[in-house]
Amino acid sequence: MSADPSTLTSRDLADLVGGRHDGPERRITCLTALEAPLPGAVVVWPAPDPARVAALAEAGVVALAVPDAEDGAALAEEAERAGIALVSVADTRLALARASRRLDFRPLPAAAGVHPSAVIDASARLGADVRVGPGTVVAAGAVIGDGAVLGARCSVGAGSSLGAGSVLFDGVVLYDGVRVGRRARLHAGVVIGADGFGYALGPRGAEKIHHLGGVVIGDDVELGANTNVDRGTLGDTRIGDRVKIDNMCQIAHNVTIGDDVVIAALTGLAGSSSVGSRVLIGGACAVADHVHIGDDARLAGGTGVTKDVPPGETWGGLPAQPFRKWVRERYLVGRLERIWAAVRELDRAP
Amino acid sequence: MSADPSTLTSRDLADLVGGRHDGPERRITCLTALEAPLPGAVVVWPAPDPARVAALAEAGVVALAVPDAEDGAALAEEAERAGIALVSVADTRLALARASRRLDFRPLPAAAGVHPSAVIDASARLGADVRVGPGTVVAAGAVIGDGAVLGARCSVGAGSSLGAGSVLFDGVVLYDGVRVGRRARLHAGVVIGADGFGYALGPRGAEKIHHLGGVVIGDDVELGANTNVDRGTLGDTRIGDRVKIDNMCQIAHNVTIGDDVVIAALTGLAGSSSVGSRVLIGGACAVADHVHIGDDARLAGGTGVTKDVPPGETWGGLPAQPFRKWVRERYLVGRLERIWAAVRELDRAP
Amino acid sequence: MSADPSTLTSRDLADLVGGRHDGPERRITCLTALEAPLPGAVVVWPAPDPARVAALAEAGVVALAVPDAEDGAALAEEAERAGIALVSVADTRLALARASRRLDFRPLPAAAGVHPSAVIDASARLGADVRVGPGTVVAAGAVIGDGAVLGARCSVGAGSSLGAGSVLFDGVVLYDGVRVGRRARLHAGVVIGADGFGYALGPRGAEKIHHLGGVVIGDDVELGANTNVDRGTLGDTRIGDRVKIDNMCQIAHNVTIGDDVVIAALTGLAGSSSVGSRVLIGGACAVADHVHIGDDARLAGGTGVTKDVPPGETWGGLPAQPFRKWVRERYLVGRLERIWAAVRELDRAP
Repeated sequence: MSADPSTLTSRDLADLVGGRHDGPERRITCLTALEAPLPGAVVVWPAPDPARVAALAEAGVVALAVPDAEDGAALAEEAERAGIALVSVADTRLALARASRRLDFRPLPAAAGVHPSAVIDASARLGADVRVGPGTVVAAGAVIGDGAVLGARCSVGAGSSLGAGSVLFDGVVLYDGVRVGRRARLHAGVVIGADGFGYALGPRGAEKIHHLGGVVIGDDVELGANTNVDRGTLGDTRIGDRVKIDNMCQIAHNVTIGDDVVIAALTGLAGSSSVGSRVLIGGACAVADHVHIGDDARLAGGTGVTKDVPPGETWGGLPAQPFRKWVRERYLVGRLERIWAAVRELDRAP
Repeated sequence: MSADPSTLTSRDLADLVGGRHDGPERRITCLTALEAPLPGAVVVWPAPDPARVAALAEAGVVALAVPDAEDGAALAEEAERAGIALVSVADTRLALARASRRLDFRPLPAAAGVHPSAVIDASARLGADVRVGPGTVVAAGAVIGDGAVLGARCSVGAGSSLGAGSVLFDGVVLYDGVRVGRRARLHAGVVIGADGFGYALGPRGAEKIHHLGGVVIGDDVELGANTNVDRGTLGDTRIGDRVKIDNMCQIAHNVTIGDDVVIAALTGLAGSSSVGSRVLIGGACAVADHVHIGDDARLAGGTGVTKDVPPGETWGGLPAQPFRKWVRERYLVGRLERIWAAVRELDRAP
Repeated sequence: MSADPSTLTSRDLADLVGGRHDGPERRITCLTALEAPLPGAVVVWPAPDPARVAALAEAGVVALAVPDAEDGAALAEEAERAGIALVSVADTRLALARASRRLDFRPLPAAAGVHPSAVIDASARLGADVRVGPGTVVAAGAVIGDGAVLGARCSVGAGSSLGAGSVLFDGVVLYDGVRVGRRARLHAGVVIGADGFGYALGPRGAEKIHHLGGVVIGDDVELGANTNVDRGTLGDTRIGDRVKIDNMCQIAHNVTIGDDVVIAALTGLAGSSSVGSRVLIGGACAVADHVHIGDDARLAGGTGVTKDVPPGETWGGLPAQPFRKWVRERYLVGRLERIWAAVRELDRAP
């Protein structure tokens, strides 16, 4: 949240979010929550209440992004009276996303240039306008794309690459042999390319399978804090484009994930499991090794997947089953008291 | 685990732990386990055995902290004979806490002063007696309270603050816009202020909701290793006073946690969930988004909460339900073999 | 994966993996997946298909490691014709482990010598040929064994030790009082020796039990990225020899783990729990405090253990029970629809 000067007007915002502009054109300097309005702010308001508009204006709010509505006359009147711009949109959540992006004045995790304490191998190649924070290490043969930002104390391993416009927050570790696409956003503590967890049980105990593969990650991927993606055994662990993974997820060796997948926190995908495209995975899920989750499938939070999930289906439970079946099962378990009573009645019957 | 010189006597210890002192006043230099006594040690002994006192004395133990007991005469006699001080307390666990604090001679995670390799922005303000370890970065406008200790390779982001007497162990990352109170103790790998996990699904795929809010953490909070607290969307993620969170927990965007809450390891609280005060949450729990856990509630380990938990109640299971109901349900599921037999009997009946 | 020069021949490989060598002796420079053959490669092929041998030879593959088989004549003939060496083994997975080890040309996480930006206390002792990466801190009294490799930005706390031949990847933190054995392999983000999670609930709220114990880890242990091992309260948390722990596991204070234990990702062992030797623990398991898992026991993925598991048994479920019992219970729950119908029928009966 910030009130830095900006040249955005309410009409620009309407264009940006694909909305209709009514009332005066106002200059917007920040985006705030309804509960904490600031001067110059636009407020994205999914359930607007005309009676509160005047108070917002008094607090300095200059624009409101509200849902298109047939009964918007009272709101428009109040906004007009208060001198506030009204931007009507089909989808306030999308409006929030675009406004938040435009009005994000948070600092980048590194200042311009390469910090003198960074350790850049002579054979590494840095693109134009790359920022590198203190203590960051870029190893031999690594390639950093134009405009990438490496926060403090990151590592880019030997021969690894980071695409243009990507951001590594502080303390991210890319091992050797890792390729990350453009516009990635990897949060603090992310580790990519650690060894997969594979051993052969032989007469001398567990013998380590050295993981010689790498990791390939597409464009526009975001990985949350302390999330891990392990390297492949001989081939690569692969994550598609526009995949969003929350904090503390575990993506094991040889996993493949398609495009546009969303995975919530504390979820683990075991070795050689695969996930199609457009899959939504809730928090705290666990997917067993070698299992496949089909395109467009969804997993409820806490699901433990032990066999393939067909495309387009929603599953839940441990072990996982189709969601409706799981809900029905939960219902039936809730009937057990009555079932037990009936059975005891039978036992007593002559 | 230390034998550094100290000026503590058994009588001082009795005062500190609110106990009664009997026998000779002895000088105590360390606190050890019963199984590994050292010379100069006090041993906190919840279930004392008079027959073992002489052997402890021989090993050099100088004091015993034991429960107040009506039948303590034999113990007192043995202690007297062995020349060991006896400190009788109402609560040996509390005595352990206080003795362990007084006899903690472990090194701080940074030496006095600011290490030359630390990178402190000119606009940051450091209080008196602040310690900053090697490679730590304190960004523009950050404020560090008196006596705070920043271990090696930490980050305090732009405009963030850390209260007096707080300790960051190595590798802690505070993003920009994070406020941590006094006497915090944040373990290695903690990340505070990473982006919340929020996207708007639109025609161009998932569009990121930039998280412009911050994080506000109260006084006397401890966060375990590799635990994450994400920043709020527009407002702040909030954690109250005296909250204790174990390793690898996930506190998502917009979460609010009251005071005196205890959360065990590998637990996740999803976005916009809220937790009252004095709540106890077991390990490996998952709380769904927007759910509220009432004051004084308790969650058993492994609980998956999908709806509000009323104040004062204890819940368990996945999905969560009142604990007694869950236990009863588990009992009834255990009766299924018999139920199934009865149903088959019916089927066979004419 | 690499094609660095090496002096390995197919006959050397046969010796290394305990296999029989047939056909020409070829020089091997790399190990690749069947799906991505490279010139000079050996391919480990659990289910070989004679019809594909010629194509592999054309891609430059020089050797195949295949299972000993009575019907191997066709394969041998094809290999001979293609000029490829054939190494027949009893266990292809073990062959993969040994070949992968021999043909691992991945770079170490630190260059030879001690990087000038490392901070080594004057009282620390470094063995011969130790490598220390940029920004790594070795505190007072620490001892590093011969040939150990400390990646970038690691910490070895006061009085801690790391055995000969061990490797710390970037960002590993060993607190004070931690002893790690020989040939350890600790991945990025590992934290060893953070405080255990213990408080005494007293009249002033939760009072911290300061953890004065340490951590002792045996030889040949591997810990995955972002895994935590907490220090003991007064004694040590202990991990035996040849223990392999995957990413993001939580080993709490006072835990003891025997030898040859394997623990998959996202598993947590609560305080004072204990695990025997040769135990296999699946991913996302949770073991309650003070519980014991007997020697040679196995836990299915997602198991929540609340009471002791006898030696040699396989358990599953939440709460955990013997695996067969759990499977039977799951079967019976699946019969609930029919049971419920029978009970409703009864209710309707006159």
